Amino acid sequence: MSHPSLRGVFAPVVSPFRADASLNLPAFVAHCKQLVADGAGLAISGTNSEACSETFDERMSLVDAVIDAGIAPDRILVGTGCCAVDDAVVLTRHALERGCAGTLVLPPYFFKNVQEDGVFAYYRQLIERVDNPALRIVLYHIPAVSGVAITLPLIERLAAAYPQHIVGVKDSSGDWDNLTAMLARFPQLSIFPASEVLMLRSLERGAAGCISATNNINARDIALAYGSPEQAARLGDRITAVRKTTEQFPMVAAVKHTLSLLTGDDGWRHVRAPLVPLDAGTAAQVEARMRAALPALQA
Amino acid sequence: MSHPSLRGVFAPVVSPFRADASLNLPAFVAHCKQLVADGAGLAISGTNSEACSETFDERMSLVDAVIDAGIAPDRILVGTGCCAVDDAVVLTRHALERGCAGTLVLPPYFFKNVQEDGVFAYYRQLIERVDNPALRIVLYHIPAVSGVAITLPLIERLAAAYPQHIVGVKDSSGDWDNLTAMLARFPQLSIFPASEVLMLRSLERGAAGCISATNNINARDIALAYGSPEQAARLGDRITAVRKTTEQFPMVAAVKHTLSLLTGDDGWRHVRAPLVPLDAGTAAQVEARMRAALPALQA
Repeated sequence: MSHPSLRGVFAPVVSPFRADASLNLPAFVAHCKQLVADGAGLAISGTNSEACSETFDERMSLVDAVIDAGIAPDRILVGTGCCAVDDAVVLTRHALERGCAGTLVLPPYFFKNVQEDGVFAYYRQLIERVDNPALRIVLYHIPAVSGVAITLPLIERLAAAYPQHIVGVKDSSGDWDNLTAMLARFPQLSIFPASEVLMLRSLERGAAGCISATNNINARDIALAYGSPEQAARLGDRITAVRKTTEQFPMVAAVKHTLSLLTGDDGWRHVRAPLVPLDAGTAAQVEARMRAALPALQA
Repeated sequence: MSHPSLRGVFAPVVSPFRADASLNLPAFVAHCKQLVADGAGLAISGTNSEACSETFDERMSLVDAVIDAGIAPDRILVGTGCCAVDDAVVLTRHALERGCAGTLVLPPYFFKNVQEDGVFAYYRQLIERVDNPALRIVLYHIPAVSGVAITLPLIERLAAAYPQHIVGVKDSSGDWDNLTAMLARFPQLSIFPASEVLMLRSLERGAAGCISATNNINARDIALAYGSPEQAARLGDRITAVRKTTEQFPMVAAVKHTLSLLTGDDGWRHVRAPLVPLDAGTAAQVEARMRAALPALQA
């Protein structure tokens, strides 16, 4: 049975930037409040948050701003994985000091073709240096981006060595066979697919929910579907349509563009390098497709 | 004609760690002094330096320690590329404040399949935010590790937009056709292959030297070969044998193991996660092969 705080629907919260590229903390807090009201938890500093394009101070300021605004930390996961273990220690300690439910931890992602022993050592050193019984880690498997896989044998080793600290896995592989293998082999862990479509298929196998970028624009439906099989049956097609639409475009830019339509705040369209905003033609396509798929955008 | 400080043989200096994983600055300084005495420049915080496994404070402390010890900054390149532009700005400003000859700048390496416009924007923002006429950037093309290529069209755009700042490219692709294309298209830039074997083949086409990990263990021969065709002819086979030997093993660990043999300091064998030290059998192979290939290790 996975940890009760570590179940449900989480949005890897996108980061609002101003035209000068600075973080817009008030817009971030407002978005987070809406997500929580819609039934989602927050995964701050995920991939789709552009966390790796932010400084450590900025990343910690996002966590602080949301908690200072009154959002309960037990609905917050924080992405804290870095290439340098000691950087991950700093971010992880900060999340723990603020009482967050858990940390979502990338493997070190600069070197490629590294040995399993090396990735194990990174997590071991993180756990030993943080040295806090409250530390709860969700391992983050996103090989197409990080280039370093969290393999089933690695999960097995880490979960056996640190059962109180290794509490879950986010599987962003998009690979159904890998997801179901994780669910079968690690019933004690919270296994989160990165897509609500895969969540709907895997709930009966024990999926813990999802940590999905599209929660930024569709959290209410996804949270309802997670909460009851009846709602899942009722909303499944609509949820799938939004997800499939998003997947046809660059994910972060498409989610942010849609959020600009939902909020009326064009500032949401800013992204940081190396991402680029949607060109006008693509933006028009996203808008047309999202107006058809998202009830909140229908007149 | 490329900038005179940005020609020659550079060692991406490996980082000595103690058993507790802390940086051993005195050992680093001693190694750097030896490299300079052997005729090499220093590329601090390169890939083989494990820079991405070090904190920013540690990386800056390496630059400070070497310059404070009296090594001339005009023989120092500093790796300053980061996933977040603002982190790269901090490291780049520090290198400039210390008077270093140039910076070796990775593209942002977390997101993959990014558009050329996004990588261009990263370098543009770095240049604009650093805002210093002394800024000299060597672009760092190492696609097998970073996952983000510095393509010929991107170099063309950057060199045209910022001719005073874009002064070179390190080509770690290992691809002869790419190297010769760079040399032919950008005669105004310092083009550095990442292997002295490719340097020897490309000097007559205008290669600026090399930035090669094996300079950590073989700088004297490589610098001599760079300096004169006669020495290159005399030493070429020996240089190639050392390089080919190193390439058969995990590069950083093999270079560090060899350095432990050269210096008698076993501390050089420590690496940081996610890298792992050589196992005993591999270490024995490295030792046997290096004793055969490296004159300095022959009794």
